Amino acid sequence: MIIHNDNTDDLGFAVIDSRRNERTCYPEVVYCAGKTIDQSEVIIIRMREKGIPVLATRAQPELALCIQKRFPEAEYDDVSHILMVGSTYSKADLKGRVIVAAAGTSDLAVAKEAALTAEFFGSRAELVTDVGVAGIHRLFNRLEDLRKANVIVAVAGMEGALPGVVAGLVAAPVIAVPTSVGYGAAFGGLSALLGMLTSCAPGISVVNIDNGFGAGYQANLINHLAGRENHET
Amino acid sequence: MIIHNDNTDDLGFAVIDSRRNERTCYPEVVYCAGKTIDQSEVIIIRMREKGIPVLATRAQPELALCIQKRFPEAEYDDVSHILMVGSTYSKADLKGRVIVAAAGTSDLAVAKEAALTAEFFGSRAELVTDVGVAGIHRLFNRLEDLRKANVIVAVAGMEGALPGVVAGLVAAPVIAVPTSVGYGAAFGGLSALLGMLTSCAPGISVVNIDNGFGAGYQANLINHLAGRENHET
Amino acid sequence: MIIHNDNTDDLGFAVIDSRRNERTCYPEVVYCAGKTIDQSEVIIIRMREKGIPVLATRAQPELALCIQKRFPEAEYDDVSHILMVGSTYSKADLKGRVIVAAAGTSDLAVAKEAALTAEFFGSRAELVTDVGVAGIHRLFNRLEDLRKANVIVAVAGMEGALPGVVAGLVAAPVIAVPTSVGYGAAFGGLSALLGMLTSCAPGISVVNIDNGFGAGYQANLINHLAGRENHET
Amino acid sequence: MIIHNDNTDDLGFAVIDSRRNERTCYPEVVYCAGKTIDQSEVIIIRMREKGIPVLATRAQPELALCIQKRFPEAEYDDVSHILMVGSTYSKADLKGRVIVAAAGTSDLAVAKEAALTAEFFGSRAELVTDVGVAGIHRLFNRLEDLRKANVIVAVAGMEGALPGVVAGLVAAPVIAVPTSVGYGAAFGGLSALLGMLTSCAPGISVVNIDNGFGAGYQANLINHLAGRENHET
Amino acid sequence: MIIHNDNTDDLGFAVIDSRRNERTCYPEVVYCAGKTIDQSEVIIIRMREKGIPVLATRAQPELALCIQKRFPEAEYDDVSHILMVGSTYSKADLKGRVIVAAAGTSDLAVAKEAALTAEFFGSRAELVTDVGVAGIHRLFNRLEDLRKANVIVAVAGMEGALPGVVAGLVAAPVIAVPTSVGYGAAFGGLSALLGMLTSCAPGISVVNIDNGFGAGYQANLINHLAGRENHET
Amino acid sequence: MIIHNDNTDDLGFAVIDSRRNERTCYPEVVYCAGKTIDQSEVIIIRMREKGIPVLATRAQPELALCIQKRFPEAEYDDVSHILMVGSTYSKADLKGRVIVAAAGTSDLAVAKEAALTAEFFGSRAELVTDVGVAGIHRLFNRLEDLRKANVIVAVAGMEGALPGVVAGLVAAPVIAVPTSVGYGAAFGGLSALLGMLTSCAPGISVVNIDNGFGAGYQANLINHLAGRENHET
Amino acid sequence: MIIHNDNTDDLGFAVIDSRRNERTCYPEVVYCAGKTIDQSEVIIIRMREKGIPVLATRAQPELALCIQKRFPEAEYDDVSHILMVGSTYSKADLKGRVIVAAAGTSDLAVAKEAALTAEFFGSRAELVTDVGVAGIHRLFNRLEDLRKANVIVAVAGMEGALPGVVAGLVAAPVIAVPTSVGYGAAFGGLSALLGMLTSCAPGISVVNIDNGFGAGYQANLINHLAGRENHET
Amino acid sequence: MIIHNDNTDDLGFAVIDSRRNERTCYPEVVYCAGKTIDQSEVIIIRMREKGIPVLATRAQPELALCIQKRFPEAEYDDVSHILMVGSTYSKADLKGRVIVAAAGTSDLAVAKEAALTAEFFGSRAELVTDVGVAGIHRLFNRLEDLRKANVIVAVAGMEGALPGVVAGLVAAPVIAVPTSVGYGAAFGGLSALLGMLTSCAPGISVVNIDNGFGAGYQANLINHLAGRENHET
Repeated sequence: MIIHNDNTDDLGFAVIDSRRNERTCYPEVVYCAGKTIDQSEVIIIRMREKGIPVLATRAQPELALCIQKRFPEAEYDDVSHILMVGSTYSKADLKGRVIVAAAGTSDLAVAKEAALTAEFFGSRAELVTDVGVAGIHRLFNRLEDLRKANVIVAVAGMEGALPGVVAGLVAAPVIAVPTSVGYGAAFGGLSALLGMLTSCAPGISVVNIDNGFGAGYQANLINHLAGRENHET
Repeated sequence: MIIHNDNTDDLGFAVIDSRRNERTCYPEVVYCAGKTIDQSEVIIIRMREKGIPVLATRAQPELALCIQKRFPEAEYDDVSHILMVGSTYSKADLKGRVIVAAAGTSDLAVAKEAALTAEFFGSRAELVTDVGVAGIHRLFNRLEDLRKANVIVAVAGMEGALPGVVAGLVAAPVIAVPTSVGYGAAFGGLSALLGMLTSCAPGISVVNIDNGFGAGYQANLINHLAGRENHET
Repeated sequence: MIIHNDNTDDLGFAVIDSRRNERTCYPEVVYCAGKTIDQSEVIIIRMREKGIPVLATRAQPELALCIQKRFPEAEYDDVSHILMVGSTYSKADLKGRVIVAAAGTSDLAVAKEAALTAEFFGSRAELVTDVGVAGIHRLFNRLEDLRKANVIVAVAGMEGALPGVVAGLVAAPVIAVPTSVGYGAAFGGLSALLGMLTSCAPGISVVNIDNGFGAGYQANLINHLAGRENHET
Repeated sequence: MIIHNDNTDDLGFAVIDSRRNERTCYPEVVYCAGKTIDQSEVIIIRMREKGIPVLATRAQPELALCIQKRFPEAEYDDVSHILMVGSTYSKADLKGRVIVAAAGTSDLAVAKEAALTAEFFGSRAELVTDVGVAGIHRLFNRLEDLRKANVIVAVAGMEGALPGVVAGLVAAPVIAVPTSVGYGAAFGGLSALLGMLTSCAPGISVVNIDNGFGAGYQANLINHLAGRENHET
Repeated sequence: MIIHNDNTDDLGFAVIDSRRNERTCYPEVVYCAGKTIDQSEVIIIRMREKGIPVLATRAQPELALCIQKRFPEAEYDDVSHILMVGSTYSKADLKGRVIVAAAGTSDLAVAKEAALTAEFFGSRAELVTDVGVAGIHRLFNRLEDLRKANVIVAVAGMEGALPGVVAGLVAAPVIAVPTSVGYGAAFGGLSALLGMLTSCAPGISVVNIDNGFGAGYQANLINHLAGRENHET
Repeated sequence: MIIHNDNTDDLGFAVIDSRRNERTCYPEVVYCAGKTIDQSEVIIIRMREKGIPVLATRAQPELALCIQKRFPEAEYDDVSHILMVGSTYSKADLKGRVIVAAAGTSDLAVAKEAALTAEFFGSRAELVTDVGVAGIHRLFNRLEDLRKANVIVAVAGMEGALPGVVAGLVAAPVIAVPTSVGYGAAFGGLSALLGMLTSCAPGISVVNIDNGFGAGYQANLINHLAGRENHET
Repeated sequence: MIIHNDNTDDLGFAVIDSRRNERTCYPEVVYCAGKTIDQSEVIIIRMREKGIPVLATRAQPELALCIQKRFPEAEYDDVSHILMVGSTYSKADLKGRVIVAAAGTSDLAVAKEAALTAEFFGSRAELVTDVGVAGIHRLFNRLEDLRKANVIVAVAGMEGALPGVVAGLVAAPVIAVPTSVGYGAAFGGLSALLGMLTSCAPGISVVNIDNGFGAGYQANLINHLAGRENHET
Repeated sequence: MIIHNDNTDDLGFAVIDSRRNERTCYPEVVYCAGKTIDQSEVIIIRMREKGIPVLATRAQPELALCIQKRFPEAEYDDVSHILMVGSTYSKADLKGRVIVAAAGTSDLAVAKEAALTAEFFGSRAELVTDVGVAGIHRLFNRLEDLRKANVIVAVAGMEGALPGVVAGLVAAPVIAVPTSVGYGAAFGGLSALLGMLTSCAPGISVVNIDNGFGAGYQANLINHLAGRENHET
């Protein structure tokens, strides 16, 4: 069988899109779920050779060990399974403010995935935990912080009510992330997803279930608008 | 074809369960949806002849006119489509306190169905409107009232977040009613239903979509426990 | 990344809501599913240090062993996986009557979760087993008992018909719990859930699939109304 | 466009399967939903010309009027919308016993469709109404009758619990018919369908939602086995 | 917690319904899925002590070994996982004819469950394999056999078309069993289930996905009508 | 608001893609559902002015009248609601052979939509009706015809079994079209769709529910391969 | 029944949240679907009396006529059914750039709802039509425009592929709006919704089906970040 | 139990359809999922004894080892798990051109299953990888190749947009294969499946989720039409 793939970035099992940067301003990201440790390792090494900063999501701890051996500057967060090598931004360079609010402790992994993604691409990110609507006083205690954000990522499972409550209290756009936390009628995050899509508060848009990366990426795009000049027409 | 139905309460198209009273303490209720005006009218007249107080749900305005002509004491609420004839309880007899909280104005019909049902069976009912979570300060303004209830009925469509927020703030049991308000991913009330079932706050139980009657009936059963002596074992 | 969480009850991976008590009259509960043994252990110890009575649901046997070593008074039920430490109520203090009826033997774990939860919060609870509707004479043998309850929890999988039959026979409110028992078109409890929500008998409200805790908690709230004075308006 | 259809029974818009009789012992049936009055009329007339007894389901009242004008012996039931012309069986010829049990009055149309279908094909059919499980004493009053049946058709909407209760009480096979009665989580009969498929009582098999005809047809096939000699091998 | 269960057949984790026999003519069946080997073993021993013939479905091979050690007459089929001890019927006693037709080889386990169940309760059962509609000539080769049956069980996964084709060719009632065979849009048997319910051929009724036992039980009830006298009215 | 649309084919409410022809060899088609009569009329007139042959699907009878007044050569089929103006192909030019097989008479509209679409684009199309699997002898009578086709379109509602049976009998590729014919568990064509996707016979691919146009278009593309030279590599 | 609602903005059937402005920077919006013409009219008049600029969505043409009679400055768009009275922003005041891209002409109503909403709240909005992925060259012709946007709203029905393609080509955040355009397996917009949520391109977040208002509102919030100073921490 | 199966090709657990060849021109295929290694091995050996070329799909590596030991000419692809023994076609014999386009690297296994299947039955197949719509320039780079195909198989998970984009660019028929790649709202391939069925581009038909074999088989049937003479009528 003829296999067409003359790209010099072709690794056989994956192709590095090294020009994504030019097209959308941001480099490609390595999604490790469904790849072997070896495959992810080869991709990361090749990207580093080309000088591309690496953000790897859902990275297994074993992969992190391998990579940290070769690249001691690599950082790994074992809650969100985010692995970063060669980030362009130092803490001092981070700009604006993305606040990631998590309803419960079981939403923490997804929330950190969002926050670390936003930071990787240059946004200052802050995490506010345990502000689920079943104990809403905890959310009110954080309202001052939430009102300073350029954009808020709200992460919740089960009934997914957090984004709607937040969007009714602040002026910033809210990116809602349903999580697969819960059992029975939570149906693997479907319940939270539907709740967020039908929220009666405007100012919310939603990403896929457990997609902390997608929310952090979108929040970063939005956050970078702040301070930017508008195009002349 | 032989049709077995020797019950003297048999009207041909419906059978009055005139002994329900003894079994469950409450008389049967007339559900008018799917019956013709004529059929409902005949049932109501027969029940009145037997001295049974009549609660008719989803009663058409035309039916209400017919019945009010014959029974001037009949009361009709054209928002909830509740029709009552020969209620046993005067306002002064109503006991305890059921509070029905509605998230939005489009939830009002269902909420009034719940409140009027509870009153019909002897509970004092109060209605608190427009306390949806997208403008949560309105809910907090009503917190004092909510805390006085023996039981709360919380009515909401779309993401259905109201019962979870309420249950985190009060000690009373909450009966949640999802409504079919909303479009798209609201899926005719499914979204609200799933949200209420998966709420992370304990102290909530749920009835069918738009089932204000069921919620009011259940709230009344619960409300009547207050003040009652416990059985000796 | 800045993590906002200045609560002194913050354990890093979880936050104890030590004032929940004041808000809703009942302390927070530890849901062990999705936590490591170590995490649950730390939370329980901290709660005991603060004098909070601990109800832990879905507790693994290993966790129970650890806790019982440190707190010999801890009680563990290996069918429902309920672990209790420092319950406030002695058997003699239990009040009123909650009856938990289970349709089949595979519903037993959920039914015991409901009964033990109700007892933990001060309700006298009794368990009636094997009263599924496929052999309905067994239910009738228990009717005298059921009629003494302030509130009934009815637990069933598959077609979930038990609560509807019970609610047609008694005057007490029924809390229905669908279980994930069954295969094929049972769809993990969905079939029982829909059946309970659409039951033609009034006096039923429903909790999430397999949520014995939620049902027991709600039944306890309701049971405690009995004997209580009504508020003056 | 060439249209292949050389059958002499071809009416252009429909083809009469006049040999179905030989293959399955029973003539074809006219399903009127989705046909114009004119189309159904032409089909029925052609079938009568060939001497085929006609059973038409979901026949509009206008169709019945047209047909009764031409065939005064035609019988029409305006609850089930069954129209029969030239039935082979007189009342005296009907054999065995099919009992059709309907849970509520709104299940009556489907139940009569089942009973009349069974009679049309030669079974003695009896109808037992209003035996839904929410008032289960009514079912018990009919138990003697039910136990005399060769086969029982059990018709119910909402939670669809009737067939399971019946099958636990009798030795006859039960054909369950879910109906689209109910609202909200009844989801047009899905709830009843799932309940019947997952019933814990053996001795039940299920037909499509609202398919009274299918149930009556199947019950008739089963009923005719009674009294029949077994094949020698 | 008080546990009500004064039945002498109570084993603690299960209750033997030793009078089921009188009510429905057939003894209770042991469903082994979800029970431990030990639990099933105890139940079977107790039933044998009471002289009840045992049909155990979904019996693990280890259970079969234990039981066969104690009851050498026990029979086990390792395809369908049916275990039988003390069957009442010898091969010579089997009556009538139930034919079980399986679409593919992966439907064999379910088909044998149906056939062995029917035999256990006294029906002569025959198995016809590999007659799926994708190679329909194989079905036609078996038509003579199929036409001799009192009742046919048709087992199929994927699109579930077999029962509809069979019902169009024979006069016997067809019990359809959808199986969970298939992937993707087969959705664990849902596709086959819907196909069987909506088949345009009359004379079909359906049991739960993979429920070979239920189909065999129902087929046996029907088969036993053949040769039986009709009740006098 | 600025509206970008500088295309000279822009009609304000629709844009004619007059170069589609070059890209895919076939002109654009007018889908009339959801357009007003006036809008469709304007589009058709504009297309004719540019010399584009017009195929309009789901055309209302009123539209057909308007168009036929202006373009007497326009052809309209009032079963499938296909309207054609200025077809490029005369009957004599039609090539190859597409056979459209319809399971029941209610599938006829969709089947004719497929056949007329294939003809419009140059394929010889033949229609075989009433070959549903519930009376499978009718299908066998047509087998000779079916085996002469280059490609077969198989149209069926309810359980959707026809394509699987056909694909097991012929060597031609089968394009399956589920229809929304049926009620209850047919779920608007979902049942047929799932059945076709999971068919155990290879050689089937499926289009959207009721999408006769899509099937005819695809069948035409395939049919035109016959007789065509293969590319040299 | 006591109805609690002491708000001076209470109209009986609706409550104006006249302080929403302070909380979230934007006034409340009137959603006309499910309100009578009279109700909407009263609400709009009251809001104008309080000097609140009015954006009414899904406004019926009759309502627009009434309002334009009283407020000649009112603007109505009869494609999107947007009605605006007393907008704060003149065309010259509009800032930044929101581009709304619509896949097909049937997505136009939703797209205009988004664009007009964004303009109402002060964003410069531009509409790009007919750029669906089935004719992808049309999208490429618009790429220059799309790359100038601060934020893009991408509106599409059926498979909902447009947002994913756009997000792979530009650096701006994309707000995706699924529409209910399509039939059969489009399932009222569900297909497009799922497609947008699972898009493999990052930089997309999604609103409810047909929720052009929600998308325009969110796009406006994001667009206003451009040019804004970041908070000092 | 009597088991009817007198076919000489009966292996007890499976039946070889050795005449399928005559009926549909192609031999039967071995689907290894759900068979033991031993069963598949026996089937393959028996088929080789009869001289039938063997295509085994979803073959486990252990099976491949066994078979290659006995038949050294056997070929195994460990990405797609395709095992071939005794293929009739040498590379030189392959005809026409089938192009298989895969959206992402995780779609590769399914894409190779399609390509190898097409080759096994005599089609020249080529694979084009990594042409997902999120980086659409990669697809455009391959357009020349795609336009040379007689038929295109387009494989994609998540939103499944690839086939629609391809079908808008080429004149060849497109066979779409949804894959189960993705998480959350991808719902195991459902999202991609719905997207492909509702694509607005004509010229697409769809096979089951992950059914690379089915797509390759269908593509081969279509490809073989090229160069074939049309039947005379």
